[in-house]
Amino acid sequence: MTRTASRRGRREARGHGIKRLPWRDVVNRLPPIEVLSDDQVEAIHQASLRVLAEIGLRVLDGEARSLLAKAGAQVDETTRTVCFDPALIEAEIAKAPASFTIRARNPAKSVTIGGNHINFSMVGGPSFVSDLDRGRRPGTFAELCDFQRIGQMLDIIHTTNCSPFEPLDLPPETRHLDRYYAAATLCDKVWSASLLGGFRARDALAMVAIAHGIDEDALPQQPLIFGNINTNSPRQLDVAMAQGLMALARAGQPVVVTPFTLSGAMAPATLAGALTQQNAEALAGMVLAQVVRPGAPVVYGGFTSNVDMKSGAPAFGTPEYTKAAQATGQLARRYGVPYRSSSTNASNAVDAQAAYESEMSLWGAVMGHANMIFHAAGWLESGLVGSFEKLIVDAEMLQMMAEYLTPIVVDEDQLAVEAIREVAPGGHFFGSVHTLARYETAFYAPLLSDWRNFETWQEGGSLDAARRANAIWKRLLADYEQPPLDPAIDEALKAYVAKRKEELARDPQSAA
Amino acid sequence: MTRTASRRGRREARGHGIKRLPWRDVVNRLPPIEVLSDDQVEAIHQASLRVLAEIGLRVLDGEARSLLAKAGAQVDETTRTVCFDPALIEAEIAKAPASFTIRARNPAKSVTIGGNHINFSMVGGPSFVSDLDRGRRPGTFAELCDFQRIGQMLDIIHTTNCSPFEPLDLPPETRHLDRYYAAATLCDKVWSASLLGGFRARDALAMVAIAHGIDEDALPQQPLIFGNINTNSPRQLDVAMAQGLMALARAGQPVVVTPFTLSGAMAPATLAGALTQQNAEALAGMVLAQVVRPGAPVVYGGFTSNVDMKSGAPAFGTPEYTKAAQATGQLARRYGVPYRSSSTNASNAVDAQAAYESEMSLWGAVMGHANMIFHAAGWLESGLVGSFEKLIVDAEMLQMMAEYLTPIVVDEDQLAVEAIREVAPGGHFFGSVHTLARYETAFYAPLLSDWRNFETWQEGGSLDAARRANAIWKRLLADYEQPPLDPAIDEALKAYVAKRKEELARDPQSAA
Repeated sequence: MTRTASRRGRREARGHGIKRLPWRDVVNRLPPIEVLSDDQVEAIHQASLRVLAEIGLRVLDGEARSLLAKAGAQVDETTRTVCFDPALIEAEIAKAPASFTIRARNPAKSVTIGGNHINFSMVGGPSFVSDLDRGRRPGTFAELCDFQRIGQMLDIIHTTNCSPFEPLDLPPETRHLDRYYAAATLCDKVWSASLLGGFRARDALAMVAIAHGIDEDALPQQPLIFGNINTNSPRQLDVAMAQGLMALARAGQPVVVTPFTLSGAMAPATLAGALTQQNAEALAGMVLAQVVRPGAPVVYGGFTSNVDMKSGAPAFGTPEYTKAAQATGQLARRYGVPYRSSSTNASNAVDAQAAYESEMSLWGAVMGHANMIFHAAGWLESGLVGSFEKLIVDAEMLQMMAEYLTPIVVDEDQLAVEAIREVAPGGHFFGSVHTLARYETAFYAPLLSDWRNFETWQEGGSLDAARRANAIWKRLLADYEQPPLDPAIDEALKAYVAKRKEELARDPQSAA
Repeated sequence: MTRTASRRGRREARGHGIKRLPWRDVVNRLPPIEVLSDDQVEAIHQASLRVLAEIGLRVLDGEARSLLAKAGAQVDETTRTVCFDPALIEAEIAKAPASFTIRARNPAKSVTIGGNHINFSMVGGPSFVSDLDRGRRPGTFAELCDFQRIGQMLDIIHTTNCSPFEPLDLPPETRHLDRYYAAATLCDKVWSASLLGGFRARDALAMVAIAHGIDEDALPQQPLIFGNINTNSPRQLDVAMAQGLMALARAGQPVVVTPFTLSGAMAPATLAGALTQQNAEALAGMVLAQVVRPGAPVVYGGFTSNVDMKSGAPAFGTPEYTKAAQATGQLARRYGVPYRSSSTNASNAVDAQAAYESEMSLWGAVMGHANMIFHAAGWLESGLVGSFEKLIVDAEMLQMMAEYLTPIVVDEDQLAVEAIREVAPGGHFFGSVHTLARYETAFYAPLLSDWRNFETWQEGGSLDAARRANAIWKRLLADYEQPPLDPAIDEALKAYVAKRKEELARDPQSAA
């Protein structure tokens, strides 16, 4: 017996073996759901070109304005407004690749972004953390590390986020370095950089180069990381986001451009209007990346949802959200660029609402042929909370979706006419040879779902899905083993973090 | 102010006004998701024809065997096995209508079964009832009436079931009469008959004729009710179900034929095999209806799910279930008959699992273009429980699905370029004329979802979705008003129930 096998045996004996789907390239072979006609897609495209040509975007960063002006955009330096001719948009977007691969530290976990590939990503950005034991609270770096560890144990999560929630016990100027170190070393997957300012983006580029053992100059040869920017909808791009975008584009690393178009708040209170504005802002951001580096990998990010018109509160996983997700897929395909969507919900608890809103988002994203599905594991409370239990509920929903996308096999053996012949009318297939031959692998085995009968479930403590998720994440955390890392690389990463912390302490102005 | 308006005003003042979607004909204009290729559909069709021709079904009812023999089927009276030539199957199924309308007592609530129409139906058949106050328990007739009343208040539920759970305080031989009376008088919607035996079917036909004020002989002119039979999979049709089917078919009333093909238990442990067996059994049942009355309205019922291979427990809303639901739609469309699916789950609590399994079922059914979605409101615990809280959670999920299926409008006004022009970069659309013009109607207003921020939600008692559903069904019940019914019809229904109870008490043998 190998050491690993022996360890696995011991672990299962302690009841720690949690059945999960192994790593899988999730591919959606089904045609996308198209909620818009071709004419409607064209009408939204044309309306967004009018917005870009006649109204424009306010670009707060001077360098970005200057690059766009040089490329042919009309820039009004007084109002910092940039307008774009349709021809410029079409020409620049045409340079973006339709598909690319991001290499992971563990080559088996590299991801293809484009085509029919779907990549599920960890939640990113919440201010708070929660679990059933300690409730909702500001997060710490130690808890963030645990979150990453659990994410690493779940192979259905293809890429991780450097910030499943903010580690508020660390100083804001340097905590991105600790977050990057955690993402780069606790997991062996592709991770995302923070693009909130050029310095954070550049630190991510430096650290991912170290983690891969390559020179930073070699970065443009191969995507190794990605990042996301949000426009400050409506029609504005701030300095930090522009600088972050440009840093990644310059290094040939993929940038996701995601307008934050909440219909009724930061965008018109109609889906067609919100999609028009989203499209204008996404095109402008992707054009900026192409201007910085022609052919830079970009992703069209869609995040159109709506607000509760009574309170102004954001809503997620609504019917409007699902339609917007599928419509955005049509727009992204029109431009031949990969598409990013999200799995979202506005629930305050890991309950039925959290699940049905997430499912509505997920079906919107998956059948909209999103290539990256952000926030797919752990998002709660409109993105204010990273939840340990939701992470497990989501992993189950993602695994189920991945299994759903596995095609039905139809051949003589699977059609099973002989098996049907063997079983008497009113009999059962439990003991048939055909059944026994596929006993172990016939169906999806759940991570979280409890199919025991009521009495057994009740004897087991009547644990609902959230309570069971609580037990599962603890068992996964107990089982966690850090993926191997060359000690020299680990040392180099630590040294980089230490050096940069010192620099940022000495010269806070360098954080710009 | 009209009396109704005044009453509504009072009610909302008491805080009882629960916002719901008004009655709507739900139509799915999107193309169905097709998980099988045309060749695969044909392979399953051909395999099921082999099962029907070479292996056959055991039909326990002599009358059914005799009718099938007369129509050209091969009947072995020793084994009670009926085999069907492919030509017989094709010829008989071709007689079934592609679409039909079932008239409701309230004509505004009549339903079209076929085409792209979707009808959501109440849960039917559970043994138990549950709510958060009193837990899971045997149900009573009084509780069943409350369940019907709440169903009546929810317009998203198109048709009701005579038995959302068994009223175990009533004697089994006659309780169908009380259930029919409740369904016919507490609601004004189409309801389903119990087809467990010819006498129960005939009582439903008599009572629905009375409720509509027509002569029973006139029933074949117009569907007024429907019923469902399950084959005793594998490959068996019992006496009660055959008699129930024949009674409805004879009266020209729609019969749904639903094989109970749990893959790995009553059907092969492969999806292709389970679908082959399902298809064979559904075809046989639909042929029996055509033999009884050519052109009788029938519906292809799909219920293929899988078991947990370790315990044999049924599982629902699994990835396999979703695929089977969409594949079954393809089979039903091949035969040009309407399709029935279900919204199901195996959870023991109204929790995240209940919601995500139901959503997986619902997306399977809706995108499989099911025309009738049974158990769409209130089903819990693999169908063993009718849950008051799940009824509300489901109504929310159904309303969201109905809104999702509403097409996006794209025109100059909706594209909102002028509204985008008016709002400054980084500003907001809250006060814009474009937003104010659609303040009330812009977005779906939820029944159950809580979008308040965490602090407000916490101050309100931190109620999760199940707890909020508990409050909502009580408020709907308090608001319930019985739909108008001609007192003479009410008297006639009561008289029929009294007469039949007496007959069944005097001659229990007539219950056959």
